[in-house]
Amino acid sequence: MMNETPGKSAVASRSNRRPRVGTVIGDVAGIGPEVVAKAWATGEVHAVSRPVLIGSAHAMRDAVDIAGLSMEVRTVAGVDQIADDPRIIDIIDNGALDPADIRRAEDTLASGAATGSWLGLADEMARRGDLDATIMGPVSAKALEMAGALDKAVRVVAGETYLLLLTGPLRVLHLTDHMPLRQVCDTVSADLVDDALTLLDKSFRAWGIANPRIGVAGLNAHAAGVEDREQIAPGVELARAKGIGAEGPLSPDTVFRRCIEDRYDVVLAMYHDQGHIAVKTWGFSGNCVVVLGLPYLHLSVAHGTAFDIAGKGIADHSMILEAMVRAGQLCGGAGL
Amino acid sequence: MMNETPGKSAVASRSNRRPRVGTVIGDVAGIGPEVVAKAWATGEVHAVSRPVLIGSAHAMRDAVDIAGLSMEVRTVAGVDQIADDPRIIDIIDNGALDPADIRRAEDTLASGAATGSWLGLADEMARRGDLDATIMGPVSAKALEMAGALDKAVRVVAGETYLLLLTGPLRVLHLTDHMPLRQVCDTVSADLVDDALTLLDKSFRAWGIANPRIGVAGLNAHAAGVEDREQIAPGVELARAKGIGAEGPLSPDTVFRRCIEDRYDVVLAMYHDQGHIAVKTWGFSGNCVVVLGLPYLHLSVAHGTAFDIAGKGIADHSMILEAMVRAGQLCGGAGL
Repeated sequence: MMNETPGKSAVASRSNRRPRVGTVIGDVAGIGPEVVAKAWATGEVHAVSRPVLIGSAHAMRDAVDIAGLSMEVRTVAGVDQIADDPRIIDIIDNGALDPADIRRAEDTLASGAATGSWLGLADEMARRGDLDATIMGPVSAKALEMAGALDKAVRVVAGETYLLLLTGPLRVLHLTDHMPLRQVCDTVSADLVDDALTLLDKSFRAWGIANPRIGVAGLNAHAAGVEDREQIAPGVELARAKGIGAEGPLSPDTVFRRCIEDRYDVVLAMYHDQGHIAVKTWGFSGNCVVVLGLPYLHLSVAHGTAFDIAGKGIADHSMILEAMVRAGQLCGGAGL
Repeated sequence: MMNETPGKSAVASRSNRRPRVGTVIGDVAGIGPEVVAKAWATGEVHAVSRPVLIGSAHAMRDAVDIAGLSMEVRTVAGVDQIADDPRIIDIIDNGALDPADIRRAEDTLASGAATGSWLGLADEMARRGDLDATIMGPVSAKALEMAGALDKAVRVVAGETYLLLLTGPLRVLHLTDHMPLRQVCDTVSADLVDDALTLLDKSFRAWGIANPRIGVAGLNAHAAGVEDREQIAPGVELARAKGIGAEGPLSPDTVFRRCIEDRYDVVLAMYHDQGHIAVKTWGFSGNCVVVLGLPYLHLSVAHGTAFDIAGKGIADHSMILEAMVRAGQLCGGAGL
């Protein structure tokens, strides 16, 4: 949905219906189900979307109790059966997890396999148009690995998908993700920069930002290196020739601060740490992790399963709530 | 001075006399002289050091007027003539600048040549033991270049000198400075890491930090690359074998936040932007720029000549004051 170039009619039709957002509850051994239940109960998610959960109905019933809530958990067969009521949890449960296999705060093959199955289901549903966006709750990479299901979690592939971090006014798209720095130097190219800028511009416009201002970080100190001149600068020019409001390459050590100060709407970073150091050192609470480049919008929560506090009802639900609300707002073109 | 390993007697003798700190007033066309005058007038500099200025006495008399102060500017021939009184500005003026050549807010060969001459004089004085530390006020790289005097400003040379940024609790030493990222990957070595850690540990101990806790950033995302394993990890081990409290390589995207939160006293960053992105994005005001590896302590002010407001008396003197006070504190072993 978000990858369509939105015409006026698309925006108008969107305003008439809230987007469908599917949230995978995360690994049942962790805090996922309980924070999802708390977020759901706020009613804030329904204000901007028609949400549905994907996972174990049994785990969600436990989670409602753990969170001290009183809500019905109702299994639905498809999105057309959503009650669209914050007092009723609608969940699609494909039976991937036998309730007898649920172990609190423990990585098991069963929970990993179930999480993988739910992530796969969410992807299928979004690809066939049943969902406008998907959200991955807190999962355990170890459990997914035990079940051979790590590939079910969305992975960033250079030139295809891009990681976008949203943290208050600081927003950063990463040209490359987990790639050795040496390889980054060989990978940065004018075409890749142009592709990322084009996708970023299209996405921001679809989300309701009329003329996105994009600051493009250089690769080297003060953007004064050979890659900055020969690859990044021509890539920015290609994008600008299409009317995209990109500027750069800019000195990497100041561009993020300029984004915080609203000189730019978003920064295109060249590599993982360039953006992640800025976001994590700045220390604004409430990150949102978005993947661009899929046929639908995908977000993941920016924290883990927190086994140490799972089942105690004390886990903070603000990050998953942020992701669930943000997904509805972005798909609905409500801006950032 | 700071490069000596301080025994108890050295610390004791230091406490009996305040260190001598020489400040080059910066380019006379910019805000240097006026912010130096304001900083001097606070009296804070004299509380921790015996300061002396190096530059044009004429420019300082103008600056005292611009800053709305009433202080005598007295030319001294050497550090033994310092009045050591915040009401009297002591300046060593080698006659490098003819007052008739002073142009406000303009880059000239004359001002560049004079600035270069003063920087050279400060270096000479420190090397012969007349000064414990030198400070470079705001200079114009363009004017220095016009005069062929760029080499008079301290430059960071890999393996010899290292740039340390101090900004509140976030302190970052850079293993490499202005070097293409591609070359950084080839330059990071166990020996270089060990050398930097050894110098950093010795400096912090001399400054009054008993057992410096050093977080060492990796080179690649999550410190999970070949250089992290084969160069940085062995370098950290070499330092640890000498009793240095270094840990790493650590994930570069979290180590700076851990320093802010007092888990470490300082971070060793592998390249310019790794540290500079952290410092500048965090946005704590009041950076201090220190060069380690010279036979004396050298600091420079973290702002430029600000031609747009030069001569108006409105320039903020907090950064140069920070550098002047910090120089005295560090040489005096007063901690960070």
